[in-house]
Amino acid sequence: MKVKVSVNGFGTIGKRVADAVSKQDDMVLVGVSKTKPDYGALLAVSKGYKLFVPEEKTETFEKAGFKIAGTIAEMLEKSDVVIDALPGKKGAEMKPLYEKYGLKQIFQGGEKPSVADASFSTLCNYEKTLGLNSLRVVSCNTTGLLRLICTLNREFGVEKVRATLIRRGADPREVKKGPINAIVFNPPTLPSHHGEDVKTVMEGLDIMTSAVAVPTTLMHVHSVQLVLRKQASRTDVLDALERAPRIILMNAGDMGVKSTAEIMEVARDTRFRGDIPELVVVEDSVTVHGREVMLFQAVHQESIVVPENIDAVRALFELANTWRETLEKTDKNLGLTYRFY
Amino acid sequence: MKVKVSVNGFGTIGKRVADAVSKQDDMVLVGVSKTKPDYGALLAVSKGYKLFVPEEKTETFEKAGFKIAGTIAEMLEKSDVVIDALPGKKGAEMKPLYEKYGLKQIFQGGEKPSVADASFSTLCNYEKTLGLNSLRVVSCNTTGLLRLICTLNREFGVEKVRATLIRRGADPREVKKGPINAIVFNPPTLPSHHGEDVKTVMEGLDIMTSAVAVPTTLMHVHSVQLVLRKQASRTDVLDALERAPRIILMNAGDMGVKSTAEIMEVARDTRFRGDIPELVVVEDSVTVHGREVMLFQAVHQESIVVPENIDAVRALFELANTWRETLEKTDKNLGLTYRFY
Repeated sequence: MKVKVSVNGFGTIGKRVADAVSKQDDMVLVGVSKTKPDYGALLAVSKGYKLFVPEEKTETFEKAGFKIAGTIAEMLEKSDVVIDALPGKKGAEMKPLYEKYGLKQIFQGGEKPSVADASFSTLCNYEKTLGLNSLRVVSCNTTGLLRLICTLNREFGVEKVRATLIRRGADPREVKKGPINAIVFNPPTLPSHHGEDVKTVMEGLDIMTSAVAVPTTLMHVHSVQLVLRKQASRTDVLDALERAPRIILMNAGDMGVKSTAEIMEVARDTRFRGDIPELVVVEDSVTVHGREVMLFQAVHQESIVVPENIDAVRALFELANTWRETLEKTDKNLGLTYRFY
Repeated sequence: MKVKVSVNGFGTIGKRVADAVSKQDDMVLVGVSKTKPDYGALLAVSKGYKLFVPEEKTETFEKAGFKIAGTIAEMLEKSDVVIDALPGKKGAEMKPLYEKYGLKQIFQGGEKPSVADASFSTLCNYEKTLGLNSLRVVSCNTTGLLRLICTLNREFGVEKVRATLIRRGADPREVKKGPINAIVFNPPTLPSHHGEDVKTVMEGLDIMTSAVAVPTTLMHVHSVQLVLRKQASRTDVLDALERAPRIILMNAGDMGVKSTAEIMEVARDTRFRGDIPELVVVEDSVTVHGREVMLFQAVHQESIVVPENIDAVRALFELANTWRETLEKTDKNLGLTYRFY
């Protein structure tokens, strides 16, 4: 029996998650929802995904020449679980409807933690979330931080984390968002919410973050400082990162790749859509000073949470018993190699 | 007897330093140098500054209609001290010529520390540099870090500093520099040289920095984490910053000013050229957690080192005995108020 998954929202995250669901052998994609008959709707149709629309928009879509599969309510009725990929905070508004149809639910990091039974990150708390009714996959930044922290925590213990997040201002297609020429304190008050969000998955961790937004669209960069519990050499840390799943350890000097633009160029040359669902850790930056580790990492905000959304489905339906089991399945199906070449 | 100062180079820093020298009552501006008869040369002439040019360029300038005061060699001959404001590394090439004319010398932070007898930052080491023959005023980023560190060090002691520098990619007029859409690891290897540069003034400080360059032209932003030697409350830290010279403590929330663009807009409304020679510390960001302090600060890269260049002249000629004495004189003459309104 395959789990029947619907994806509500077909934007930046939704379209990638729909692709990912359709590649899993223990899930079936019921369909995706759209509210406007735009290029995204054309994409869904061209991929053969069933298109569901709000009841009051049926006519609009039909006039625009779209063949629709039904209303959003009908999509939900046919599903076991909904992956909500609507813009931030809209998921919470939809929750009563999801409950009405008796669906399990997966929300994105733009929602408040209280929207779901637990916040989720595969490498950190998969086993604790087995069989729950709803999960919130944490945001791209939080997912990036947690991939690193949980990997190093497993090997050496992590005592303390301080990080500065240099956030891309907007996604590539978002023409109305800024900044164009500014570094924005995001927010001016410290610590930023990102560290708090990490704690929704790793309760009690000593973490404080600050964040700025800058005029670029490609990736977030994190300047991270961690204090380990055990002494480890630089080689130990690099080995752990090299072995870790969902992390690409990239040597910026050897590759001649010293910015997010150059990382994305490599991805455009080697990956569908130029996506990088892995966390990219800059090998040259990894510096160990006593129990302190400093490094740079880069997060492809559009795709990093996609594998975690798939794992979240498996957690809700107990389709895999361990994080390792779901991760291996997801990453094989998505063709993730943890390297560019 | 006024000290005779020439300013070699009339670019971003040189033109501001020349203005500053001409406002001091214990210095006289011999003149400034230009190598091309462009808008900068027009600016110098319109301000009544004597224009000196390379001997082989005399004809070019005269053909362009400029009245020149002589060659660069003649400018140096008439001076007691030269403030070198040439592009990075060019100062070291000029040093033999400066020595030939028996001049004391001030270099900028783009030069290696070995170019001068000492690296210099008014609030940190003025008294130690009295009577030396040459000084290197540290870079804009280093000056910004040192203003903060030496202020807090004086009040509470500073045990450790970790900072991420989010650097503007280019100055407003630099049309050939990037990045346009990238966050650049600057450099990928950690720690970055900025912490090392701080140590040229504060030997032995436990400081490590990382830096990225981003697509903006206005100001650098520093995300700073310091560990104090003494326990201090947030109020203590804010009081110290409020009282400190050359620091503007700005409340981003109250002002509605949450980015470098908005800070510069305030400066354009209130300051000549929109310059901010003070360090801007974001009041809302100041967070105290045990002995740990976190905050954001912003550095106007074009003007922050200007007052330090003036103080460096006073140090070389012992025109003031203490940092407080030179600072009060410089800042009064420059009209620095440590606030926007």
